[in-house]
Amino acid sequence: MTTARILDFLRTRRPDGPCLVVDLDVVRDNFVSFRKALPDSSIYYAVKANPAPEILRLLAGLGSNFDCASVAEIEMALKAGATSARVSYGNTIKKERDIARAHALGVTLFAVDSHEEVEKIARAAPGARVFCRVLTDGEGAEWPLSRKFGCVPQMAVDVLVYAHQLGLVSHGVSFHVGSQMTKLDAWDAALSDARRVFDKLAQQGIHLKMVNMGGGFPTRYLKDIPTAQAYGQAIHGSLRKHFGNNIPETIIEPGRGMVGNAGAIKAEVVLVSRKSDEDDVRWVFLDIGKFGGLAETMDEAIRYSIVTPRDGDEMEPCVLAGPTCDSADVLYEKTPYPMPVSLTIGDEVLIEGTGAYTTTYSAVAFNGFEPLRSYVI
Amino acid sequence: MTTARILDFLRTRRPDGPCLVVDLDVVRDNFVSFRKALPDSSIYYAVKANPAPEILRLLAGLGSNFDCASVAEIEMALKAGATSARVSYGNTIKKERDIARAHALGVTLFAVDSHEEVEKIARAAPGARVFCRVLTDGEGAEWPLSRKFGCVPQMAVDVLVYAHQLGLVSHGVSFHVGSQMTKLDAWDAALSDARRVFDKLAQQGIHLKMVNMGGGFPTRYLKDIPTAQAYGQAIHGSLRKHFGNNIPETIIEPGRGMVGNAGAIKAEVVLVSRKSDEDDVRWVFLDIGKFGGLAETMDEAIRYSIVTPRDGDEMEPCVLAGPTCDSADVLYEKTPYPMPVSLTIGDEVLIEGTGAYTTTYSAVAFNGFEPLRSYVI
Repeated sequence: MTTARILDFLRTRRPDGPCLVVDLDVVRDNFVSFRKALPDSSIYYAVKANPAPEILRLLAGLGSNFDCASVAEIEMALKAGATSARVSYGNTIKKERDIARAHALGVTLFAVDSHEEVEKIARAAPGARVFCRVLTDGEGAEWPLSRKFGCVPQMAVDVLVYAHQLGLVSHGVSFHVGSQMTKLDAWDAALSDARRVFDKLAQQGIHLKMVNMGGGFPTRYLKDIPTAQAYGQAIHGSLRKHFGNNIPETIIEPGRGMVGNAGAIKAEVVLVSRKSDEDDVRWVFLDIGKFGGLAETMDEAIRYSIVTPRDGDEMEPCVLAGPTCDSADVLYEKTPYPMPVSLTIGDEVLIEGTGAYTTTYSAVAFNGFEPLRSYVI
Repeated sequence: MTTARILDFLRTRRPDGPCLVVDLDVVRDNFVSFRKALPDSSIYYAVKANPAPEILRLLAGLGSNFDCASVAEIEMALKAGATSARVSYGNTIKKERDIARAHALGVTLFAVDSHEEVEKIARAAPGARVFCRVLTDGEGAEWPLSRKFGCVPQMAVDVLVYAHQLGLVSHGVSFHVGSQMTKLDAWDAALSDARRVFDKLAQQGIHLKMVNMGGGFPTRYLKDIPTAQAYGQAIHGSLRKHFGNNIPETIIEPGRGMVGNAGAIKAEVVLVSRKSDEDDVRWVFLDIGKFGGLAETMDEAIRYSIVTPRDGDEMEPCVLAGPTCDSADVLYEKTPYPMPVSLTIGDEVLIEGTGAYTTTYSAVAFNGFEPLRSYVI
């Protein structure tokens, strides 16, 4: 799955230490696929997935919009060539002074999920458009979705009425079905909720214009995933079902789906050992772990595809762990990971599909290990 | 619990954004307490707990030794004024080229827990002293201890015999009872194991000299903890019980116990909201979370003491969460955290006992948020 360009880069440059290599051609292909799959939706790239300047510049050039979680991310998007009209401040938890900074930068679209956030925006970004995030159950997502973001639909109605009363533009509704969502029909129930919020506001003379359908589009790890086209068809079907001929403006916010499969991490086997002569499971220690960029292995949630130079040899289940002194820095233990019996200290492995949610999760310097380096080619 | 010096600093300097402030006077007091509690043990500060140069310089000046997890940490310890004789390379998972670098820097003491690691050290640091880490059960520790480090005692015997055969100095045994260990007798079983390893090697003519009793010494969070003196007495009792009049050299490696209570994080309430009108639990969002330095709230393991300007008002249980768009960035939800009903957006809170395992765990820039800043005063 790792591209020839990435393999060439690693062969030629031979970087020392763990690193992520991202192939921009794949990002471009992903963007085109999303545009084809949902031609009537605006694409807002979730910058948090991978804010590498080269990626942001490419996407800005392709006409992407940007979903930003902080003022720093807004500044990165603007620096990459996006106009402020193409930026959404999508975090529902913002300091009022950060809202004011975004407003000063020209941003006019903000996420909310509470009355309190609406008040901040009314004060710091008067006249801005807001969309209210609605809770979904996240069932079928491989990365846990908590109740952290969103409110129940009835409260969303109240929040948007309140925004209207405070002079803001009540623009729409958002939801997130959960990251790495492999169920095609996951958007359906949330779109049904969105329609109800539209109706209740219309009854009060407030006409919403937009549904932000969030991210959730997966990357292929070990299991096959549906195509962007299949997601597009399912989502379009649900939009028709719930909104009929009055389909509103829609937004999607792919992050993992845009860059996940564009990157691979090169890592090295530091140690292969056993804990006792009786153990039937070996321990394989890599030079990257939970605190070096693989945070999504938390609770063994994301299970990456790992390519070794000895694939094809006899395999046996191994516990896979990172290099730090933290006992929690274990990647796969409850469900051991099959690795070649012949795997040897010094072997280089490729952890595939790691273009999203790796570099930025990396710890500053835990155990003195430097943060994950990244090359965008 | 936060010192007057830290409170003064925050009042005077009023730093913007979340930050850690560490009071060196407390670190000095902790060092003196450990030295008094275990006068016959050498103190090796676990650099990973907090590698701030000011802390390392203070401890080097006080005569501390240093437990280092990487070459970068070794270089920090040397730069702070330690000699290489006062450094232990305590990570059992090392690249051979890093062992060679440590050897070149003059380090002569290395941790191992496998035959494979012994071979690397024999090649890259010939003649070095090694100690083998033995697995313990970690019962009673508040931060999970996995089987990641160490091997069973019988394998430790084999590993140390092998080290001897390869021309290394088989110097001793190490163990770690688990971080934030609040049971005084936790060291007893491990010391009994250590004694058995000593005996089995003596039968083969190899005379170990040292027991590295690791860290595990706690910081006071919400519950009271025993004093350093109480740990010293319990450990000394176990040493006497298992080694009689032949107590070997001993090492302790306090990290959390040395710096945890020396620091406090200043954070800000960004949002207080509910998810529905029926919810009886409010959500309190801070400008710091799991990816900004509070990684030890993983699985709600470490429960910090949080001081607010409205303590004394009526309290109610809250879900406490961080500022990032990651739904996993929730600090306390399973067991909600009591906070004042009057707590308001913009309030500054103090997260106490955060001098250890915070700055270095902080993510590079997740969501565009800068890493945790730190002031050592």
